[in-house]
Amino acid sequence: MLRYTPPVDDMAFALFDVFDAEAEWARLPAFADMDEAVAKAVLAEAGKLAAETLLPSYQSSDAEGARWRDGEVVAPAGFRAAFDGLVKGGWLGVSGNPHHGGQGLPKMLTVLVEEMFWAANTNLYLYGALTTGAAICIDAHADAALKRRYLPRLYSGEWTGAMALTEPHAGTDLGLIRTRAEPLADGTYAITGNKIFITSGEHDLADNIVHLVLAKLPDAPPGSRGISLFLVPKYRPSDDAADGPDAAGSVRNGFVSRSIEHKMGIRGSATSAIEYDAAVGHLVGEPNRGLACMFTMMNHARVSVGIQGLGLAELGYQNAAAYARERPQGRAPSGPRDQNAEADSILVHPDVRRMLLAQRAFTEGGRAFAAYVGLLLDRAEHTADEVERDAAQVAADLLTPVAKAFLTDRAMDCALLAQQTFGGHGYIAEHGMEQIVRDVRISQIYEGTNGVQALDFTARKVLRDRGQALRRLLNDLRGETVPDEFRAPLHAALDATERAAERIATAARADPAAPGAASVEFLELAGLAIYAWLWARMAQVVTKADAAQRARHEGKLDVARFFYAKLLPKTVALECAIQAGAAPVMALPEELF
Amino acid sequence: MLRYTPPVDDMAFALFDVFDAEAEWARLPAFADMDEAVAKAVLAEAGKLAAETLLPSYQSSDAEGARWRDGEVVAPAGFRAAFDGLVKGGWLGVSGNPHHGGQGLPKMLTVLVEEMFWAANTNLYLYGALTTGAAICIDAHADAALKRRYLPRLYSGEWTGAMALTEPHAGTDLGLIRTRAEPLADGTYAITGNKIFITSGEHDLADNIVHLVLAKLPDAPPGSRGISLFLVPKYRPSDDAADGPDAAGSVRNGFVSRSIEHKMGIRGSATSAIEYDAAVGHLVGEPNRGLACMFTMMNHARVSVGIQGLGLAELGYQNAAAYARERPQGRAPSGPRDQNAEADSILVHPDVRRMLLAQRAFTEGGRAFAAYVGLLLDRAEHTADEVERDAAQVAADLLTPVAKAFLTDRAMDCALLAQQTFGGHGYIAEHGMEQIVRDVRISQIYEGTNGVQALDFTARKVLRDRGQALRRLLNDLRGETVPDEFRAPLHAALDATERAAERIATAARADPAAPGAASVEFLELAGLAIYAWLWARMAQVVTKADAAQRARHEGKLDVARFFYAKLLPKTVALECAIQAGAAPVMALPEELF
Repeated sequence: MLRYTPPVDDMAFALFDVFDAEAEWARLPAFADMDEAVAKAVLAEAGKLAAETLLPSYQSSDAEGARWRDGEVVAPAGFRAAFDGLVKGGWLGVSGNPHHGGQGLPKMLTVLVEEMFWAANTNLYLYGALTTGAAICIDAHADAALKRRYLPRLYSGEWTGAMALTEPHAGTDLGLIRTRAEPLADGTYAITGNKIFITSGEHDLADNIVHLVLAKLPDAPPGSRGISLFLVPKYRPSDDAADGPDAAGSVRNGFVSRSIEHKMGIRGSATSAIEYDAAVGHLVGEPNRGLACMFTMMNHARVSVGIQGLGLAELGYQNAAAYARERPQGRAPSGPRDQNAEADSILVHPDVRRMLLAQRAFTEGGRAFAAYVGLLLDRAEHTADEVERDAAQVAADLLTPVAKAFLTDRAMDCALLAQQTFGGHGYIAEHGMEQIVRDVRISQIYEGTNGVQALDFTARKVLRDRGQALRRLLNDLRGETVPDEFRAPLHAALDATERAAERIATAARADPAAPGAASVEFLELAGLAIYAWLWARMAQVVTKADAAQRARHEGKLDVARFFYAKLLPKTVALECAIQAGAAPVMALPEELF
Repeated sequence: MLRYTPPVDDMAFALFDVFDAEAEWARLPAFADMDEAVAKAVLAEAGKLAAETLLPSYQSSDAEGARWRDGEVVAPAGFRAAFDGLVKGGWLGVSGNPHHGGQGLPKMLTVLVEEMFWAANTNLYLYGALTTGAAICIDAHADAALKRRYLPRLYSGEWTGAMALTEPHAGTDLGLIRTRAEPLADGTYAITGNKIFITSGEHDLADNIVHLVLAKLPDAPPGSRGISLFLVPKYRPSDDAADGPDAAGSVRNGFVSRSIEHKMGIRGSATSAIEYDAAVGHLVGEPNRGLACMFTMMNHARVSVGIQGLGLAELGYQNAAAYARERPQGRAPSGPRDQNAEADSILVHPDVRRMLLAQRAFTEGGRAFAAYVGLLLDRAEHTADEVERDAAQVAADLLTPVAKAFLTDRAMDCALLAQQTFGGHGYIAEHGMEQIVRDVRISQIYEGTNGVQALDFTARKVLRDRGQALRRLLNDLRGETVPDEFRAPLHAALDATERAAERIATAARADPAAPGAASVEFLELAGLAIYAWLWARMAQVVTKADAAQRARHEGKLDVARFFYAKLLPKTVALECAIQAGAAPVMALPEELF
């Protein structure tokens, strides 16, 4: 049985010691009511829900899976009660707009709340997580009537959300979609087409499901400039006409789940193929600007998926560490540690420590990174000063693909190390470690594969503004006061990132393949450099703390040193691979693959 | 549906172009009958069996799984016919001792035969692979009567083999086992105890199953010096008494499968918990020397598991490359490639090429590595000159843990890249890519985890002889003539490996934790250096070839350059991490994990 202890102390460390969240919130009127005590109460309450209500059905939901029958989808046993816990606590509206019933908590805090939900039951939380994203998109782009009608019931969790983008022949390349939207007389649209991979597109945990669907208007321009976004509810509420209640009352809309997928993991989450047959939808945002609207949702979802990885990595670490403490096997290299036992615990073996420390370095570093990205998102939304606000938005945009890809790639590394710590027992279903690996794997694929994230980071976020946003970030990080022992390697990593960006920019002028040939390595390099900054910052906090505080954060300095000694050196290899340019990637003729 | 084309041309390249197998065989009287034509016929025949007979039940066996009922185990549908193909072709005896009915083919060739069987149906071949290992152990250590009685029927595949080592509380640390062996009056032993994780320990594909079981004699010394090895057949044949046929005829021996495991992958393979209740066994080898005898089997199995990884990586690559050629999505960075289509195939994207090329670099490099290890094993067994034979054995021993761990770690990387190439479709069961990931994962865990391999390599194979065997190998590789462009980076990788070995040896004198704190990085560094040598050697072959030969091996030079530009630089990071020593790994107090 998997165990999970919500890491609320480490979350408070990230919020209040690593970043001065209270000072941050004091500067933003939207968070006037927030302070350390409130935040800690929120974390404690979310943690309690995660460990006590969400966790128990996580493993059983994998064995049972979601079930499909005649268009209806039944969620696994125990999910109704667990979902009710999310709903009753108001957890699906924590970051929502207070004008429509949301709680408006800082994202810096809610990313950590999400970490615990993803950790304790990724399968279950998938039914809720897309609700938050759909609400953000509606809040940003829909008209006032739609907001009034839909937001309160999404924030409350009475209804849930789904995003319908992919079609069988169109995944990354959404310009190819064929779903059509025909204007109707009352200002709504008839949506017709087939979508696949729709997470929570159909299920029995909520009274209504609100789909945000990409479709093409008649005579839309070809490609991605001809895509519009529509809100398509499973049940049309009685007030769902453009100009007030229609006669029909709450009626079933014209779409149905044709099947659900059999997947490697997240098996308790139902992934539907949906057929829309003249389903009634409302345009969200401007015609043909649907992709931009959808990106509001997607950017949120990308950060959230990064946090999903983080949560699962933490779950894996906790169970691997417990196993390592409890499993006797072999003896310490320096001789028997426990003379009275037949064997020492495997925690005495250096390589077991290496595996656990790598997980610690990435989960604790990842938690600080998540808080930092949340902080940037809060500043981007709520800072009064426009210049400062824009700068925060640019930084958040820059780091969104890094948060998605670096957090999930490292989460996969961590999950594999956690499984490996169990030896043969890690391969057996009952221990749950193999489930974590299977479940975390999707986070590298959906919401844009990590290869797509890397190209977004490299081409859109770095090259397009000639590296300005990245340089600004790197200069900020260079200005940080850190313990002496970390200064030189930190600056080396930051400098390597800047050199790599310049190298890619130069190469791109001669060869359009250059960014894509280096993008994955470049994102990983940037991620490691940012974690080097975060670990140096954490080390500085601990070094400067008084004795009492220091005792609380014992171990941070050791993990920081492990990160610098064992993980950061990869930056050197990544820079070499980037400097090699596009030729080694592009030379092999296509017919020889 | 997964596709598989046996890579027989590339295998012939490894055997006859990269290594001059014909000259090698001409020097060894045991292989007097072998030549290129015979070897190619063997490869073609094995490939045909793999693709036509083994492959079709691979995916269905995962969905169906092996089934247990009242101690009986039923293999998945289609496995009987597929196994019969292995048996009828004599494939389980290809490397067996000709004096007892084996075919005695060179291991250099049979490792490549095995690659195809592992690739086409890992689940099925697991019922056969342990047979070969059991036979090798019996041939090396059992008495003449046991050899006569058991070897012919193992080589024919009429009977299969299994190894029973692990107990619930004793995995890596076999010194802890509790299974007992009581001497009986007729010279046999009564074996009693519980074993777990017994691959093919019970199934319905063969008439008999021959277990090699580790157990302790009465008054055996404690720990690993008190372990003996016993041959315990499921059915005792009528001639199974020490001094001729006994009265009982063929009788069921006293052990039973208590259950089979529910696993992440290799679900068509039955992994039993076996209870031995005074089962009759024969001592193999000397009393209390069982672990050494078992290592004869284990060393073979470790190479074979490495090849399992290689085979699955090849299966993944072939399907990923096919998908990349066929899936239209997006446009080439330089503009539309196919003007008439809506989109170009994803093969135009540099990052897709990167993923595929990394797989190519490791599978083709791995194939050459497998052939090289096979060559060393052949020399170690058959070379007349004793000094030369011993040198080959030392080199084979040195490289066995590298073959097991480096081949399987890279296979996991490759399988994940192959799955990633499919995007969201890679996560869906029907495409089979996620099955490859789940199946390859076990290869990093069983037959000694890859962490155990790394410690074996570092402490036993390198430090114990003060680095002599490693230095001899590195000096051999340094002597190789390679194209100019690869010389400096090849020598840098070889030198880095030697420096790392020296650093670990120095550190180990002061700190017994030093080898384990660096071992995983050290094995990976050595593996990359060896692949650098192999790729340089392959590049040299192609460069020196005449035009006709060159056309056959088109692309090798491009893949070599990719390996050097994109993958080899990791050696720099690994050396840094090794140079950091044990302190970063050992500093965190145990109670803080």
